[in-house]
Amino acid sequence: MTKLEYWIPAIGQIRHYKRKNFGADLIAGTILSIMLIPQGLAYALLAGLPAEMGLYASILPLLVYAFLGSSRTMAIGPAALIAMMSASFSSQFALQGTPEYNTIAILLAIMSGCILMLLGFLKLGFLANLLSHPVISGFVTGSAIIIAASQVKHFLGISVSGASLVEIIEGTFQQLNLINPVSLIIGISSLFMLLFLKRYFCSLLSRFGVSQTNSMLISKAGPILVIILFTFISYRYSLSSKNLALVGTVPSGLPLLSMPNISFSLVSNLLPAAAILGLVSFIESISISQAFATRKRQKIDSNNELVGLGGANIISGLSGGLAVAGSFSRSAINDEAGAKTQLAGIVSALFVLLTLYFLTDLFFYMPKAVLASTIFLAVFSLIDFKAIIHTWHYSKHDGIAMLGTLIIVLAFGVETGILAGVCLSILLFLWHTSHPHIAIVGNLTGTEHYRNVERYDVKVEPNILTLRIDENLFFANCRTLEEKVTQLISERPEVQHLVLMCNAVNMIDISALESLETMMQRLKAANIHLHLSEVKGPVMDKLKDTSLISELTGEVFLTQHQAIETIIKQDETAKI
Amino acid sequence: MTKLEYWIPAIGQIRHYKRKNFGADLIAGTILSIMLIPQGLAYALLAGLPAEMGLYASILPLLVYAFLGSSRTMAIGPAALIAMMSASFSSQFALQGTPEYNTIAILLAIMSGCILMLLGFLKLGFLANLLSHPVISGFVTGSAIIIAASQVKHFLGISVSGASLVEIIEGTFQQLNLINPVSLIIGISSLFMLLFLKRYFCSLLSRFGVSQTNSMLISKAGPILVIILFTFISYRYSLSSKNLALVGTVPSGLPLLSMPNISFSLVSNLLPAAAILGLVSFIESISISQAFATRKRQKIDSNNELVGLGGANIISGLSGGLAVAGSFSRSAINDEAGAKTQLAGIVSALFVLLTLYFLTDLFFYMPKAVLASTIFLAVFSLIDFKAIIHTWHYSKHDGIAMLGTLIIVLAFGVETGILAGVCLSILLFLWHTSHPHIAIVGNLTGTEHYRNVERYDVKVEPNILTLRIDENLFFANCRTLEEKVTQLISERPEVQHLVLMCNAVNMIDISALESLETMMQRLKAANIHLHLSEVKGPVMDKLKDTSLISELTGEVFLTQHQAIETIIKQDETAKI
Repeated sequence: MTKLEYWIPAIGQIRHYKRKNFGADLIAGTILSIMLIPQGLAYALLAGLPAEMGLYASILPLLVYAFLGSSRTMAIGPAALIAMMSASFSSQFALQGTPEYNTIAILLAIMSGCILMLLGFLKLGFLANLLSHPVISGFVTGSAIIIAASQVKHFLGISVSGASLVEIIEGTFQQLNLINPVSLIIGISSLFMLLFLKRYFCSLLSRFGVSQTNSMLISKAGPILVIILFTFISYRYSLSSKNLALVGTVPSGLPLLSMPNISFSLVSNLLPAAAILGLVSFIESISISQAFATRKRQKIDSNNELVGLGGANIISGLSGGLAVAGSFSRSAINDEAGAKTQLAGIVSALFVLLTLYFLTDLFFYMPKAVLASTIFLAVFSLIDFKAIIHTWHYSKHDGIAMLGTLIIVLAFGVETGILAGVCLSILLFLWHTSHPHIAIVGNLTGTEHYRNVERYDVKVEPNILTLRIDENLFFANCRTLEEKVTQLISERPEVQHLVLMCNAVNMIDISALESLETMMQRLKAANIHLHLSEVKGPVMDKLKDTSLISELTGEVFLTQHQAIETIIKQDETAKI
Repeated sequence: MTKLEYWIPAIGQIRHYKRKNFGADLIAGTILSIMLIPQGLAYALLAGLPAEMGLYASILPLLVYAFLGSSRTMAIGPAALIAMMSASFSSQFALQGTPEYNTIAILLAIMSGCILMLLGFLKLGFLANLLSHPVISGFVTGSAIIIAASQVKHFLGISVSGASLVEIIEGTFQQLNLINPVSLIIGISSLFMLLFLKRYFCSLLSRFGVSQTNSMLISKAGPILVIILFTFISYRYSLSSKNLALVGTVPSGLPLLSMPNISFSLVSNLLPAAAILGLVSFIESISISQAFATRKRQKIDSNNELVGLGGANIISGLSGGLAVAGSFSRSAINDEAGAKTQLAGIVSALFVLLTLYFLTDLFFYMPKAVLASTIFLAVFSLIDFKAIIHTWHYSKHDGIAMLGTLIIVLAFGVETGILAGVCLSILLFLWHTSHPHIAIVGNLTGTEHYRNVERYDVKVEPNILTLRIDENLFFANCRTLEEKVTQLISERPEVQHLVLMCNAVNMIDISALESLETMMQRLKAANIHLHLSEVKGPVMDKLKDTSLISELTGEVFLTQHQAIETIIKQDETAKI
């Protein structure tokens, strides 16, 4: 595989493209666009942007990802969480509805794309691993609650802004007297209709003789049907005269690629936000692409995904769109509809393009309240309180990380929430590893096995203390080991040999090495020999040139049993 | 041991105090004070504070630590690094020489003391473990360079301020035309004299028949002799008329305990600085106390140390002193001089108190340049470039953390440096663990052992893939495992069983658990069974109630050999 082929996985796919897949990709692409168009409009609304920006983000990014990404069925484009984050970040720098606000959203897409591409080329995708599952889960639930709360304003026909739940609720309550009844009726009735279609449309179609797969696919057209219906009602009864908020004029056609005007200070201010946005969109996307790939035994390369997603975001911004990511709901439909390659994505992008050229007039009368209903429904399924109980039950630490992230997201907004969550989970992990399980072990009589003295009835030599360390030795826990040794030695004046059993130590960093060297010197001053046993190969490779080994007051033993036998024998010889 | 006895270790020490130790403690305390007084004055100067504040920090803190701390020989009081950090933090909020500046230094001592006490009572001392050895080493070398550079102004008789090396050098160069020749001569000659005494005083004394221990102890009086000599010269030739900077008036006696005037906003602004100051002083102190305790088989409790050091800092601030920590040089002298308990510290505190009541007039003519020489010499021994090479050789990661911290300290000052160092070492550790060693293993023919296929000539069943994971499974690496599995499965269409060998896995957090559960579902869709082998007891305890085990598509095997044998047998039965 050449370097070019590595970075552009599409080359291989095109070369081995099977003609029989063409029909399947065509059908999947068509079905995909039926979901993509309303979602594009809705998520642009969610991001506080003009509707067309959601459609712009649904064209070129799909093409770029098709060439650079490694997933065959992931559907990329506007996504609820990313749109919400974009809104939350942008509103910190400009007022929603102003051209500056739109520019910032575009800039965020371009910048997060550049960061992702850079991470991909530098193979630094591991940074995304810093977001643990509990943090992501708490973050998603918290964001979904905020998104749902932020959509209430569209139902009520008022305008509220705010990054945290408190701000949004406060803002909403202050304007309760301005509620627009038409908006409320349209919003609630469309919500009920969507709920009904979601629950019963599929079984209704089956009852009319449509095959199960087909009725499942057709039922996904529910949102677009509801949107068409209410757009027609709004047009027929001129509801805009009743102050119903509509999508309004959407310019026809695709804008020319252009770079927004930027200042250095703005870019540096946006940097943290762009980095978070990029990492979250990467995590969302890689989870989706991996899920579909393993199922079909296909390969996903995280560097390709970084570059593909990065490229998609850059082109989205350059073509006037908002930030994009993989969408789970659309990827699932794409897969169900039989998509074999990213050609399906290209087909759906073409449909969106045609819509932009010929159907924008239809959007004029589309009520925002109906789009809000589709968002409401989509994000509601993301709220997951059961996960908190489940996580708490498995591990208090993970539970704290999850609940902490959720609370901070609700109280201070998504940016603070996710940063605090990352810090919390890293701290809790370090806390865990800095309190390693260290057991005093003894010999199981009649065997060569050594076990914890607290769990087993084992034989211990009075002058030999053996400690088994069940953790890597590194900076966060070497002091704990020192402390434990200091304490045990002070309690046992008869000890002359300390054996560290290292069978569970996969790594010793320089902090731990220095700690061991210091410990050895101190033990030497107290006339205690330090021995090591069962050191793993890779760990020993690194240790062999250090003064810990060259000046070791004891020996390095292959097995624990050998250590005890040798020490006893040596002591006996010394006595004679 | 009652709770009171736990938190006040002195109770036990007083109860078991041996009368014969009294003489030793008295002598050690006297010798200690000969070092403590000049160091107290010099470190106050280093912190940019009036000389008396260094002496205030050398009285009550020693008494408080004697009661609350757990080390018997550690000498507490003003310390070079802490004084320098105090200067660096204080100068961010006020101008050196103003009463506000002194108040901030006092506030820093009180606040860092409160933070340490809180950490001690909450048993959160592990937070100090976040500072890895490379970070501390880079930080100490960087700070020592900055301290040394910042003392040059006292030699030149100019006034320069700045937190980073660049600022200090720039400031010094700008004022080169203002150099005071008297200051320069006094400074350089005292420096040479100190160097000479440090090198040859001890052997000179031995030659005159003084015993080796005694000459070592007496040679520590070098600095005070040099200070006395130059103070006399300065007095005799009225050098202040030549614009030589002197210590000047030092108020006699100890001030009343008092709380400085504070505002809420000032306290919250100082919080990060106080936390860093506290943690660094804790790390410095605990390293020292542990070094002396292990040697004598005494016990150190990190919570006692936190409370003792915290109390010492609070009382230092309340009595008008600067922040304190354990001093390595003084502790070593204390130990050499035969100190058995903290009574030695109390004795030296009494000497400082007497000095403050009766000898302050002598300080008036003391040249600041001579104090600067003692600082210069003390910190120069802390600069350690060899450590960088040594660390780099052992591990690139640790080397990067060390060099990174050093460079950032020099370029941006100590606060930024240490924070960046902590982040860097955590990130590098997570990078390491997020790239775990995962080996495909096979059977060593004729044995029950399983080894890495790349290192050994082993037998592998074509339809069984066994992976040994040499690392804890947690959020930072579970995605790597998923990726590895996705890739290996895509390359091996014949695989029907995946066995994860978990003998080196000490922990599985919820992120990894969910990752394994998802992986199992995906493998199920691809008709691959997931098995686990050699899962450790504590890990299995947590796993047993999870859906990973209850819905496991394969089995959990005690040993790897059992796993392979059982799977082969089952497959044969299935074929028949």
